[in-house]
Amino acid sequence: PVREKVAVLSDKVVDSNPYSRLMALKKMGVVKNYDEIRHKTVVVVGVGGVGSVAAEMLVRCGVGKLLIFDYDKVELANMNRLFYTPDQCGLSKVAAAKKSLSFINPDVEIEDYNYNITTMDNFEHLMGRISNGALGGGAVDLVLSCVDNFAARMSINQACNELGQTWFESGVSEDAVSGHIQLLKPGELACFECAPPLIVASGEDEKTLKREGVCAASLPTTMGIVAGFLVQNALKYLLGFGDPCPAPAGYSALRDHFPTMALRPNPDCASSWCRRRQAEY
Amino acid sequence: PVREKVAVLSDKVVDSNPYSRLMALKKMGVVKNYDEIRHKTVVVVGVGGVGSVAAEMLVRCGVGKLLIFDYDKVELANMNRLFYTPDQCGLSKVAAAKKSLSFINPDVEIEDYNYNITTMDNFEHLMGRISNGALGGGAVDLVLSCVDNFAARMSINQACNELGQTWFESGVSEDAVSGHIQLLKPGELACFECAPPLIVASGEDEKTLKREGVCAASLPTTMGIVAGFLVQNALKYLLGFGDPCPAPAGYSALRDHFPTMALRPNPDCASSWCRRRQAEY
Repeated sequence: PVREKVAVLSDKVVDSNPYSRLMALKKMGVVKNYDEIRHKTVVVVGVGGVGSVAAEMLVRCGVGKLLIFDYDKVELANMNRLFYTPDQCGLSKVAAAKKSLSFINPDVEIEDYNYNITTMDNFEHLMGRISNGALGGGAVDLVLSCVDNFAARMSINQACNELGQTWFESGVSEDAVSGHIQLLKPGELACFECAPPLIVASGEDEKTLKREGVCAASLPTTMGIVAGFLVQNALKYLLGFGDPCPAPAGYSALRDHFPTMALRPNPDCASSWCRRRQAEY
Repeated sequence: PVREKVAVLSDKVVDSNPYSRLMALKKMGVVKNYDEIRHKTVVVVGVGGVGSVAAEMLVRCGVGKLLIFDYDKVELANMNRLFYTPDQCGLSKVAAAKKSLSFINPDVEIEDYNYNITTMDNFEHLMGRISNGALGGGAVDLVLSCVDNFAARMSINQACNELGQTWFESGVSEDAVSGHIQLLKPGELACFECAPPLIVASGEDEKTLKREGVCAASLPTTMGIVAGFLVQNALKYLLGFGDPCPAPAGYSALRDHFPTMALRPNPDCASSWCRRRQAEY
């Protein structure tokens, strides 16, 4: 059986329909119009341990368009997380991901950018894709941050504050046993600079923290769970069902603990765009 | 770069080492001897939406041996969950899974059984593999139940009660927005029959509940999260770190709610083997 492109999602219950189990969400009253997923565009920045799984989940859910950004290559050291396979080592993560994702679901339009978003030119280009990259033009529906460093998070925060773009931040800890997701709506909810992590507040270069011969731990379980939380809440936001996680939702693996807390914007936020969005809201 | 077999896990921090990020769990003090994973054998019954992802997580974590059981075929209707790809449609799930899993990590020994565990002969064979299928012989370390029906869960419960085998049960709801995992230790914790679901208690044939043209909904997010919880707690149990989830841990996607509760064995359990194990404990 070949997987041919389909234009319209069908709810027909046959083995050959890749969307029957998703369209069943409509029949069961969970989602009013699941079909709307075909018109949604999502940006995923960082397709590593969390981002690649998040991208695969969105693609398998039948999202209309996906834009992926990363500047890293696939290595054997990444094989302890889901998604990439040993034969892809040496390829750029975005090229490897685009190929696998298109093969899994040819209905999804995919744009891939193999660059570091924190340089001036690339940042401007990212801003352009967020504001004009949607299916049919215009702003994308959602940005997912799946990066592993604060510089990249600050760039995404800056872009989304300027554009008034809703986004989700995600992350896993260096010891692999905790993680978090956070919904950010410029002006309405705290931005990433409203309550910056210590390393950002101190202005220190995070590269100085890396030690020779020591690497962060990672687990396919923790990263899969964080990607699952992230895309689950992205689906709730995009399709309007349930409560999209309103604030940082943590996950601690050692005790199966899931703390959440509300985070209002900081009136003294260091980001002038955040303060401007607060005034508008 | 080719992925060659390795006999011993290395903690060397180089791009070409597929285990550096896992061995870092030891350096960071999370797991005392991560290397022990190489000597562990895990059974996964059911390699559908939850089981296939659980199997992939275990394989990427470097488990020594995996035994997989299923009697189903891959269909396009399964493409809304992680793991299987469209080119595998028509293959048995265990054959497709074994091929992908061996390619991802050739260090893992894999046994696959393409049969229904609930028939008399197959049940006896399953019992034999649980009690003798470990690396080097003897009983396996853990059984993971990732099946989608009560008859199969009852068979696993029966086998594990008879053998005194610790196992985890898992499941997702028909509307795709909730799920659970449960640790079962014969005699010490409630077995699956101690507090049976209504359909089991009533003795009704669950097949009569299926309606023509209606199928269960499923989401790669919910199934990935449940698989992540399941294997995270399996790792904690196998390697002795953190608290392995002691009782049913639920997940409700709509409100990001995670209920847990303690479940002691039922002295009046319908399973005579459960009552015998309770007396021993």
